[in-house]
Amino acid sequence: MKANGLMVSQNGGPTQVINSTLVGVIEEAQKSDHVDKILVSKYGVRGARDDDCVDVTKIEQDRLEIIANTPSAAGGSTRDKPDEQYCESIFEVAKKRRIKYLVIIGGNDSADKARIINDMANDKGYELRVWHIPKTVDNDLLVNDHSFGYGSCARTVAGLALGNSLDNRAIPGLKVDVTMGRHAGYIAAASQLFMKEPGYGGPDVVFVPEGEPFTMEHFLDVITDIYKKNERVYAVVSEGCALAVKKVLSEEADAHGNVQLSGSGTFADYLVGGAKKAINAKDLRARADTWGYTQRSNPFSISEVDLDEARRGGRYAVQQATSGDLDGTVIVVANRDLQYQFSLRVGKLEEVAEKTKSMPLEFVEKHVITPAFRNYALPLVGEVPEYDSLI
Amino acid sequence: MKANGLMVSQNGGPTQVINSTLVGVIEEAQKSDHVDKILVSKYGVRGARDDDCVDVTKIEQDRLEIIANTPSAAGGSTRDKPDEQYCESIFEVAKKRRIKYLVIIGGNDSADKARIINDMANDKGYELRVWHIPKTVDNDLLVNDHSFGYGSCARTVAGLALGNSLDNRAIPGLKVDVTMGRHAGYIAAASQLFMKEPGYGGPDVVFVPEGEPFTMEHFLDVITDIYKKNERVYAVVSEGCALAVKKVLSEEADAHGNVQLSGSGTFADYLVGGAKKAINAKDLRARADTWGYTQRSNPFSISEVDLDEARRGGRYAVQQATSGDLDGTVIVVANRDLQYQFSLRVGKLEEVAEKTKSMPLEFVEKHVITPAFRNYALPLVGEVPEYDSLI
Repeated sequence: MKANGLMVSQNGGPTQVINSTLVGVIEEAQKSDHVDKILVSKYGVRGARDDDCVDVTKIEQDRLEIIANTPSAAGGSTRDKPDEQYCESIFEVAKKRRIKYLVIIGGNDSADKARIINDMANDKGYELRVWHIPKTVDNDLLVNDHSFGYGSCARTVAGLALGNSLDNRAIPGLKVDVTMGRHAGYIAAASQLFMKEPGYGGPDVVFVPEGEPFTMEHFLDVITDIYKKNERVYAVVSEGCALAVKKVLSEEADAHGNVQLSGSGTFADYLVGGAKKAINAKDLRARADTWGYTQRSNPFSISEVDLDEARRGGRYAVQQATSGDLDGTVIVVANRDLQYQFSLRVGKLEEVAEKTKSMPLEFVEKHVITPAFRNYALPLVGEVPEYDSLI
Repeated sequence: MKANGLMVSQNGGPTQVINSTLVGVIEEAQKSDHVDKILVSKYGVRGARDDDCVDVTKIEQDRLEIIANTPSAAGGSTRDKPDEQYCESIFEVAKKRRIKYLVIIGGNDSADKARIINDMANDKGYELRVWHIPKTVDNDLLVNDHSFGYGSCARTVAGLALGNSLDNRAIPGLKVDVTMGRHAGYIAAASQLFMKEPGYGGPDVVFVPEGEPFTMEHFLDVITDIYKKNERVYAVVSEGCALAVKKVLSEEADAHGNVQLSGSGTFADYLVGGAKKAINAKDLRARADTWGYTQRSNPFSISEVDLDEARRGGRYAVQQATSGDLDGTVIVVANRDLQYQFSLRVGKLEEVAEKTKSMPLEFVEKHVITPAFRNYALPLVGEVPEYDSLI
């Protein structure tokens, strides 16, 4: 009896469009003559290890459409990083379930998982086509022009910043917001995508992990200068900048050795506390928000472009896996010379595994995004909302 | 020369639809034969005091449409609470500018301002028609069925909670989110409006200021019970509950004597820190977000119902002020016996001034919203997003 099953899993931090990729995989597999069974492993590769799967071979198109538009991971996710024994278990399940195609949707950690499992399969002579499909809000995957999930996160953050900037213009004060982005400033930079000028439709300034290391001294200089000029100031800071002041932050390592910077208001409160003291104005309204999971899960700010591309990424992996009998990762290619053009190509798993990229330095100059960044990111976020002001 | 000018101001914390009310006022005044000039005072009544206004008599409809859909206060806002001298200055400006209609959009503080100014005008025999139009995300105005602004805030919070609940289901852990709502639990309760069951599409539990006073002991009991059962727990807590544990929070009073509970992550971090210790599970993912200004400024989660009602409220005030030569406040009336029906009536300024209402106790039972609350709030938030899960 031939092994023609497909198993797909969602891994790492959820995004607003990781379900769109999942649905792309499922619907393409449903169409394929090469696939006779489609399983979603629950809670990412953990379900593949534990033989805990949902059979979606005959799932209805109506339900798929709803799932494709649902944020977060409909099959569950995991941050497990499989070791040798973990991978052994996955093989046992794959054999038992007659799996030929193993599709892993995830970030760089997940690409690395895919590579490990693929190497083991090769070593053992088991015919397993392992595929990785990129996903991360951080947008820090190598080789890819951008990651599925970033466009929606950027749209969410640009919208939050638009609202907060208008709020801070209406009742002038000091506002600091902290975004996700451990290593790269792409998310923080997105906060200025909808602005008409610094401070109007976005923050006056953004602080990203790239370039000159973040220091509290420089931050306070910038903030107080703007406040002196405008009697209000709004700054967006990437959580990656917190590394520079980590002594004030609780350090907590997850299974990957990443320091936990999200999920606490400590950094934002520290920044706004310092800035309030430095500005030292009477009755100064000072506020700090840490946007947290909103950035990757809001159902109301999904980018249509991102949603569509993420689904195409899912379909593409299955097309390549079944027609070419290849292993690999889906690589996102884009051309912005004239109109934005998106395409996909096949890459090797090791191309993206276990490495992250930074944002180019020329995307932010003196804490304001450049036309180069707008040219890069605007095509990914969908329609720009209109707004106007009387002041 | 007859005084036929209209001056309108936006006051208090901005909302997602306060501009819709502003536009309702302007467009109705443009149509009226009784009004020959329309001014927006900048930064709320502060602009009325300082004679700092924008003339919008001939503003184009296209621009009005964009402003109506823009969150926050396009004319600026203020939290000033006018005293005798402040009101004197407003009269001087009103006389000089030939103002007959003074429209104040705002919350209960603003209704009180309107009353003060109105009393002064009457005392001095100056013919000034003073109108208040309700606005507050907190939904705690007396007499009104609901306030303009609440529906969009509720939609925003319900969407945030939907996303966060799906996120916490995908990678199970402990999640606590803190909402606005100093005195009333309406905003926190809205976090369960889109859920299919507790913990799926909304939090497992909500904690509101009404009913039994919040205690950390009870909170931890509830949280640990749910975690034991499901190995994940998601709670939404109103900032109003922070009063019960205020000794751990920085206390800061604004001009109204309100304790500042927003704008800091302290309360959420305190809650999640305590809960993490109480659950005491290995590798527990624990996160806290404080949603802050997002709840009142997000451009992507405005309720169409709220937007429309807010605009009708603006038009209604001008109709009443000009046709009936009345002073008053716009009162929101609703009937939910069969289909939701919305209407407006005229109230006296003192009816809503300086008082707040709590949410009825029967809207939340054992930390879960009741059908009575759904019946009350669902008609206000617009379309309910579809979502689905495979786990």
